[in-house]
Amino acid sequence: MSISASTVKELRDQTGAGMMDCKKALTEANGDADKALDVLRKKGLAKAQSKASRDASDGYIGSYIHMGGKIGVLVEVNCETDFVAKTDDFQDLVKDIAMHIAATNPTYVSREEIPSEVIDKEKEIYASQVENKPPQVIEKIVTGKVEKFISEICLIDQVFVKDPDSKAKINDLIVEKIAKLGENIVIKRFARFQLGA
Amino acid sequence: MSISASTVKELRDQTGAGMMDCKKALTEANGDADKALDVLRKKGLAKAQSKASRDASDGYIGSYIHMGGKIGVLVEVNCETDFVAKTDDFQDLVKDIAMHIAATNPTYVSREEIPSEVIDKEKEIYASQVENKPPQVIEKIVTGKVEKFISEICLIDQVFVKDPDSKAKINDLIVEKIAKLGENIVIKRFARFQLGA
Repeated sequence: MSISASTVKELRDQTGAGMMDCKKALTEANGDADKALDVLRKKGLAKAQSKASRDASDGYIGSYIHMGGKIGVLVEVNCETDFVAKTDDFQDLVKDIAMHIAATNPTYVSREEIPSEVIDKEKEIYASQVENKPPQVIEKIVTGKVEKFISEICLIDQVFVKDPDSKAKINDLIVEKIAKLGENIVIKRFARFQLGA
Repeated sequence: MSISASTVKELRDQTGAGMMDCKKALTEANGDADKALDVLRKKGLAKAQSKASRDASDGYIGSYIHMGGKIGVLVEVNCETDFVAKTDDFQDLVKDIAMHIAATNPTYVSREEIPSEVIDKEKEIYASQVENKPPQVIEKIVTGKVEKFISEICLIDQVFVKDPDSKAKINDLIVEKIAKLGENIVIKRFARFQLGA
């Protein structure tokens, strides 16, 4: 059973759940999007859905200074209430994300921020690398490479550095906290300064 | 004795000393730029000059989190060596600047960063407010208002919030540290996040 990238994206947009979770759910549901949604719900990633559209206007701005001041990160993570912003659970999340940004140096928070020219250019380069293959193969390879590219430059698509074995992405961390804390959580923005960069 | 803004600016560019110090020095020297330079030298602001053109590529990135995470600041201040970057003197400066930015919310580090359209637009507005006066008066008023505008939006031209009585600007703080630590010091960049802004 092959699951198309666009189906996965649709389910992600709908639920706010992680790429891998959506893919697994779709595979389990034999590609049926409604059933996949139920699978996510059963796994407790459901709670996230109904929250994902709610307004996250409170939150916490955290920082992380690395290597004695040679790298610094500032990150704003939004939730819905000051009550949740003040919990250790939320503040640990902010700390983890700031530390992660210091280590991985992402360019964007999420794929929605990437200018379409940037993606188009990558696609063109990847396509030209495999131009002698059949069109379906080219599309598959290009899609795979673009996904890899995105997962390298987008914060929420990056594998969390503190736990690389689990393959959990930053977005998975957030979905987990949304389920636990019962509020929508959004990484609004970050800044990362590095001496000489 | 009236000192023109352009004379003050020239002395500032030449020495890296603060606006007020240059103005005072020029007044003391009856407008003679060379003598004013000597005045600055005598005041110990001299050391700064020879350092001001040197490469500042080391430094320290500091942060300041205000009001339990509702405002956050990240600032990179450069000096020439890691040795100076590690001194309490330097790190106190970085802390003071970060705290100041949290309080005053500047737009730019220095006037060099302001797009000329922004200044031109301000000049136009100020000029139209006083259009019935003689040209020299208009110029004087407009220059004064532009200086005030710049000193409000540029970090290094702002009066240091922790010591408003002394009227010391952030640039004065830096020049003082340059003289004390014997290295060029430059604020490279800052980021300021505020919840809901």
